[in-house]
Amino acid sequence: MDRAIVLLSGGLDSTTCLALAKNENYDIYALSFEYGQKHSFELELAGFNAEKYNVIEHRIVKLDRNFFTASSLTNAEISVKKDCYSSLEIPDTYVPARNTVFLSYALAYAESVKAEHIFIGVNSVDYSGYPDCRPEFISAFEKTANLALKETTEGNMKIKIETPLMFLPKSDIIKLGKMLGVDYSKTISCYDPIDGKACGRCDSCILRKKGFEASGYKDETVYV
Amino acid sequence: MDRAIVLLSGGLDSTTCLALAKNENYDIYALSFEYGQKHSFELELAGFNAEKYNVIEHRIVKLDRNFFTASSLTNAEISVKKDCYSSLEIPDTYVPARNTVFLSYALAYAESVKAEHIFIGVNSVDYSGYPDCRPEFISAFEKTANLALKETTEGNMKIKIETPLMFLPKSDIIKLGKMLGVDYSKTISCYDPIDGKACGRCDSCILRKKGFEASGYKDETVYV
Repeated sequence: MDRAIVLLSGGLDSTTCLALAKNENYDIYALSFEYGQKHSFELELAGFNAEKYNVIEHRIVKLDRNFFTASSLTNAEISVKKDCYSSLEIPDTYVPARNTVFLSYALAYAESVKAEHIFIGVNSVDYSGYPDCRPEFISAFEKTANLALKETTEGNMKIKIETPLMFLPKSDIIKLGKMLGVDYSKTISCYDPIDGKACGRCDSCILRKKGFEASGYKDETVYV
Repeated sequence: MDRAIVLLSGGLDSTTCLALAKNENYDIYALSFEYGQKHSFELELAGFNAEKYNVIEHRIVKLDRNFFTASSLTNAEISVKKDCYSSLEIPDTYVPARNTVFLSYALAYAESVKAEHIFIGVNSVDYSGYPDCRPEFISAFEKTANLALKETTEGNMKIKIETPLMFLPKSDIIKLGKMLGVDYSKTISCYDPIDGKACGRCDSCILRKKGFEASGYKDETVYV
């Protein structure tokens, strides 16, 4: 079986993951979520890249907006903090159990289309300190996944959570993506964009900027 | 902390779980899902029991109906099988990764309201063979949960998945519920009810009927 689910947010990391999976010749089923995020413009870019990389199917799952409101990423009453990136604490853009929920949907999708590989662009180097991006979380989820499904329990499938970016600094992710033809002007990482343009000041923008600087590539990001 | 999330489907098992959690004096946050199930009447009964057991909050999360269609439980084009209960194979009422998805939402809810306990009425004795009802699955999910959250990672919370019914035969679950005042006429287990009345012939109805017979209690189920 050479099918893969790719969790595709429309950001820099997940789009690079998509390009990597394509380069490894998987038949790709892309999965995005609309969960009330302030940066929902990313879904348009996810659609653009899903088409560019010729996925078999691109599903956008609508999550109940009322459920994920504890974060500045989704709650209009909490502003996204600017100009204060620190790698030492988990920021208020954290959404409770987000990757657990995303991976659970990916798992359901994987069993439905018989895909053994689930790509997720998590990274534990240049990241915002989210606990559900760490290798120990991913490894525990993978174990759970293989105990959860009919197909894995009956020995017909084995789920592998693929995290090719886990230990790469942002600059190396960008270099990799450029080699694979990713057009980063068609990705957005900003947590709080205006009219589809990046703010340049939230944690995610700061990490991305530094990554481009260190990569030697021109920063193609469209800023406000 | 004595707060608990109770996954409440409106069926016999989850309602017994709710009564148990109440009996243990937890402040209860009940969580139900509307996912296109043919037996969505259960949500009305979930609401009835949430009120009866005085929960702090009862949330019904709408899941994207288009996503969970691989099962006879949710897909109108597949009939629920009747009169063929067998404990030897996983039936076509199986929904891919359902409990993983449900528990992931419960986890997000748990962190938001600072509840350390998540009650789920899974059972590995008189059950339909679903892999995500087994103790090894629950244990793996619990490990994942504690690696997933900000609050657990920072040492402020520890998530415990509570499965008080795991090793009880259906008849003992019914006896327990009766002791705790559960009105089983206000629960529904049927996978394919008509106007809120149980069919009496699907796997779930058959297990429930046998449970009442073995318990010595009168079967209060409303059948068609």
